[in-house]
Amino acid sequence: MRGAEALLRTLSASGVDTCFMNPGTSEMHFVASLDAVADVRPALALFEGVVTGAAIRYGRMADRPATTLLHLGPGLANGLANLHNARRGRSPLVNIVGDHATYHKAYDAPLESDIESLARPMSGWYRSSASPADVVGDAADAVTAAYGPPSRVATLVLPADVSWLECDVPVPTTVPDVVRQAGRRAPVDDGVVAEIARLLRSGEPAALLLGTSAVRAAGLVAASRVAEHAGAKLLAESFPGRMQRGAGLPAPERIAYLAEFAMAQLAGLRHLVLVDARSPVSPFAYPGKPSDLVPDGCEVHVLASESEDAVGALEALAELIGAPADSARLVPAGRPEPPSGALTPASAAAAVGALLPEHAIISDEAITGAIYLPGATEGAPPHDLLSLTGNSIGQGLPLATGAAVACPDRPVLAMQADGSAMYTIQALWTQAREGLDVTTVILDNGSYAILNIELGRVGADAGGPAARSMLEIGRPDLDFVALSEGMGVPATRAETADELTKALGEAFAEDGPHLIQAVLPRGGI
Amino acid sequence: MRGAEALLRTLSASGVDTCFMNPGTSEMHFVASLDAVADVRPALALFEGVVTGAAIRYGRMADRPATTLLHLGPGLANGLANLHNARRGRSPLVNIVGDHATYHKAYDAPLESDIESLARPMSGWYRSSASPADVVGDAADAVTAAYGPPSRVATLVLPADVSWLECDVPVPTTVPDVVRQAGRRAPVDDGVVAEIARLLRSGEPAALLLGTSAVRAAGLVAASRVAEHAGAKLLAESFPGRMQRGAGLPAPERIAYLAEFAMAQLAGLRHLVLVDARSPVSPFAYPGKPSDLVPDGCEVHVLASESEDAVGALEALAELIGAPADSARLVPAGRPEPPSGALTPASAAAAVGALLPEHAIISDEAITGAIYLPGATEGAPPHDLLSLTGNSIGQGLPLATGAAVACPDRPVLAMQADGSAMYTIQALWTQAREGLDVTTVILDNGSYAILNIELGRVGADAGGPAARSMLEIGRPDLDFVALSEGMGVPATRAETADELTKALGEAFAEDGPHLIQAVLPRGGI
Repeated sequence: MRGAEALLRTLSASGVDTCFMNPGTSEMHFVASLDAVADVRPALALFEGVVTGAAIRYGRMADRPATTLLHLGPGLANGLANLHNARRGRSPLVNIVGDHATYHKAYDAPLESDIESLARPMSGWYRSSASPADVVGDAADAVTAAYGPPSRVATLVLPADVSWLECDVPVPTTVPDVVRQAGRRAPVDDGVVAEIARLLRSGEPAALLLGTSAVRAAGLVAASRVAEHAGAKLLAESFPGRMQRGAGLPAPERIAYLAEFAMAQLAGLRHLVLVDARSPVSPFAYPGKPSDLVPDGCEVHVLASESEDAVGALEALAELIGAPADSARLVPAGRPEPPSGALTPASAAAAVGALLPEHAIISDEAITGAIYLPGATEGAPPHDLLSLTGNSIGQGLPLATGAAVACPDRPVLAMQADGSAMYTIQALWTQAREGLDVTTVILDNGSYAILNIELGRVGADAGGPAARSMLEIGRPDLDFVALSEGMGVPATRAETADELTKALGEAFAEDGPHLIQAVLPRGGI
Repeated sequence: MRGAEALLRTLSASGVDTCFMNPGTSEMHFVASLDAVADVRPALALFEGVVTGAAIRYGRMADRPATTLLHLGPGLANGLANLHNARRGRSPLVNIVGDHATYHKAYDAPLESDIESLARPMSGWYRSSASPADVVGDAADAVTAAYGPPSRVATLVLPADVSWLECDVPVPTTVPDVVRQAGRRAPVDDGVVAEIARLLRSGEPAALLLGTSAVRAAGLVAASRVAEHAGAKLLAESFPGRMQRGAGLPAPERIAYLAEFAMAQLAGLRHLVLVDARSPVSPFAYPGKPSDLVPDGCEVHVLASESEDAVGALEALAELIGAPADSARLVPAGRPEPPSGALTPASAAAAVGALLPEHAIISDEAITGAIYLPGATEGAPPHDLLSLTGNSIGQGLPLATGAAVACPDRPVLAMQADGSAMYTIQALWTQAREGLDVTTVILDNGSYAILNIELGRVGADAGGPAARSMLEIGRPDLDFVALSEGMGVPATRAETADELTKALGEAFAEDGPHLIQAVLPRGGI
C-alpha cells in the first residue's frame, strides 16, 4: 500500500470521514487513493479559502476534525485566513499540505516555498512526514493534536514521494491508542471552584464570561444557575465558535464588538470569572483608548482554562453555592411578527426570527447588518450560532458549507455581508455540487459599512472622496443573483421586507442551496 | 503630518504612483491620507489575491513598483500566492501590510498573528516600521529593495500607531538618494563574456537560455545574433514574467512545461549558457524521472546573473564573436486565417492570432488551453506576453487588471483557464470599476485538465470515480457570463470558432472590459 493510502486509512480509523480539498500534481497519489478508502468523503472546492473554512465548521459541528488537502505553499497560503479563524475559534482540524518529493526540494522548482514558515502562525501542531513508514504515526498524532485539548489546527505536510512509495508498517483498522484519549479535558481543581464560590458569595459585583465549551447547552444552563443565584452578570465572548441558543436556553450577553459598548457592559465589575474564555481586549487599538477592556479595580479569575472541563466546573460551582437545579433563567419561546415594508437590517433580522426552522445552524458574517439578529432570534427554536472567531472575513460562506456537510439533516442559514461574501464566494459552487441545504442571505448595503464607522472611530479626519471610495463597493453594484446562478445556486432578489420574508420561507421549504440578495438602504449600516 | 501621510509622500517622491488595496480598520489613517497625496492613485479590489496580482503586473509593465495595502496577517495571507508569483518572476513590488498598534500587539487581539513568519517566504526584503520618524527612511528603503537588482517583493509592515502619530522628520519631495541608484544592474566581467565566446566557437552543441531581462526586444535581438552566428540553440525560460514577441522579433523556443518535452529540447547539448535565467528543473518530481533537466555531459555556464546586465553582456558577446548586426532571425509578419467551425484550443488560438491588436498585452493563464497560443501569435503584431511565473494559479485575471492600470493605452487580453479563473474571479469587478480595457477569454473545458494529465504522469493508477471527480469542475457547469455580468463586466458565450472570432473582434473594438466564455469540448485539454 502506498503512503497516501496508509495515511487515508489511518485518518479513517481515527474517525475522520470528510476531506475538503483543492489538490494539485503533488497530491495526485492522495487523490488516487480516495476510491480505495471509500469511508472518507472527498468534497472539492474551487478555492482553498473554501476548503479551510468548510473544514472549520465541520470540526465545530461534528466535534471531530475534518481534513483538508492543499497544494504546496501557495495552496496553503490561500487557506491561511480561515485557518486563522480556526485557530482563534479552537476548532479541531487536520490540515494536510502536499509538498514536493523530499529529494526534489533542493531544486527550488517554481512552486517551492517555505511551507513551515507559512503554516506555523496558524498551526498549533506541525510536522512533515519523512517517509511512508512514518506517515501512519504522523496521521494519528495529527488527529490527536487536533482534538487537543485545546482543539487546534494540526498541519501535516505530505511530500509527494512519501505519498507514492510503499508503506511497510501495519496500518490501523481501529482507533489508534494515541487517538483514543484525545480531547478529554482535565477536571478543574476543587480549590479553584471553592475560591470562585467564595468571591461570588462576597456580594461584590461579578460576572461570568463564557467561551468555547461553555456556550453550549449544558454549560449555559449551569452558568445561568450560578449567575442567577449569586446575582452575577452572565456574559459570553464576542465571537463564539459555536453557541447554542434560542427558546428554553439561557442567553448570556455577548461582549460587544465596539470597545465603547464593551466597556459599558463591564463597568463597575469587581470580579470577572473566565470560563474557557479569554479576558476581553479591544479588537483594534484606537488613539487614546485602552486596549484592555477590563475596568480598573476589577480582578480577573480563571474558573476553567481552554484545556479544562468548564462544564463540570460550572456544575460543581452551582452545587457548591447551592444554586437550585431549576434556577437557570431560560428564554421563553417567542418570535417577531413577519415584517412588512422597508427592508432594513432590523426587518431582515425580524424575517429570520419569524421563520427560522427548528434545529437550524446560523453562520453569521453579516457584520454591521447583523446587529439586530441576536435579539430577533433569541426566542426562536433552539439553534446553533457560528460566528467570525478570528475576525478574518471570508469565513461565512465556507463555514455554512462545512456545517451543512457535517449536519445533513439540519437547515443552515448563512447571514452574510456583501463585502465579506466576495472573499470566498466560490463556496456557493460546492454547495450546489454537494446539494447542501444552505440558505444564504446577502445583506447588501453596497459598502464596507464597518469601515465607514471605523474611519471615524480611529480619529482619521477623512471625508475625502478618495478615502471614501475605498470603503464603498457599489460602483458597480454586485449582482449576487447572477453570481449565485453562475455557480449553480438558485437565487432571488428582495427589495422589501415582504419579499425577503417570502423568499426566506420558500428557501427554507425547499431542500438544496438558495441565495437571497437582500438589498438594504445605501449609506446605512 | 501623520506617519501614514509621510509614508505616502515618500512613496510618491520615489516614483510610486499606484496603490492596489483592500484595507481594514488598522489601515484607516493610510486611507484617510489618500486625498492629501493625490498623485498616488488608489485602486480597490474585493480580495487580496487581486491586490497582489495586480501589483505584480503593474511592476512588470511599468518597470517600477506599485504598492499594495493589506489588512494584517490574514489580509497578507490572502495575497501570498500572488506574492509567490511576484517573487518567482522577480517583479518589483512594495507590499504594505497594516498591523495593530505597536502597544496593542501584546494583547493578542483576534486578528493578531505572526506577520513576519507569513511574509518572509515571499519577501526578498522585510521590515516593520518602529515609529513615525522611521517611516520615511523605511519607505525609501522598501522602494530601493523592490527595484533590486534583482527586483523583489519588499514587505513593509505599518503599525496603526506609526500611521496615526505625527512624523517629525523631513519628508522628501524629490527622489530620495537611496532610490536614485536602485535597479542598476552590474556589468558582466569581460572575462566571462570571453569564456562564453570561446565555448561557442568550439563548435560543441550549445544553447543560450534567456530569462527575465533577456526576453525583451534588445536582449532577444542580441541573443539571436549570437545564436545564429554561432549555430547555437536559442531557448527561453518556461514562464517569463514579461516577454516581448511577435512580428519583427526573434522567437526563442520556450522550455516546455512537461519534463519529457523539455528533456527532448535539451538533449545532446554540451553547453547551456544561462542569461538571467535559472537552470531548468522539472516543475514536479515524478517517480523514476530526474528533477534536474540538464542532460548528462552538458555543462551549465552563467553569462549574466539576475543582478547583472544581461543585455549588455549579450551585445558584447555578439560583437566578440563577430556576429553581424543584422544576423538576428526575426519572425516575419503573418497571422492565421480567422477560424471557422468547432471551437477547440487550436481554433481559439487561431482566433487570437488572427485578431490580436497592435501593442497588446497578453496575460496567459490558460494552462492546457494555451498550447497552441504561441504558434498562432508568433507573427502577430508585436506584443507582450505575461506568464504564470510561480506556477501558482489565480494570477491571470489580477495581472491583466494591473497591466491595464499600468498601460491605459494598450489593449490587454487575458487568456484564462476556467479552473484557475475561479481563484481570483473578483478581479473582474476592479476591471469594471476602473473601466479597464481588458478582454478576458475563459477557455472552459469543465475540468482541471492539467491534473488529468498529471494523474497519469505521476504513475497514480487512478481511474476511480472519486479520484476523477476531484479533477472535473463541470458539475455544476460554471456560467462565466453570469459571473462576469454579476461584477459589471459585459460578457458573451462562444460555442463555435466563428462565434469566438466575432466576439473577440467586438471586444477589441470597444473600450472597457469584456469577457468571453469559450466553451471547449469536455474531456479534452
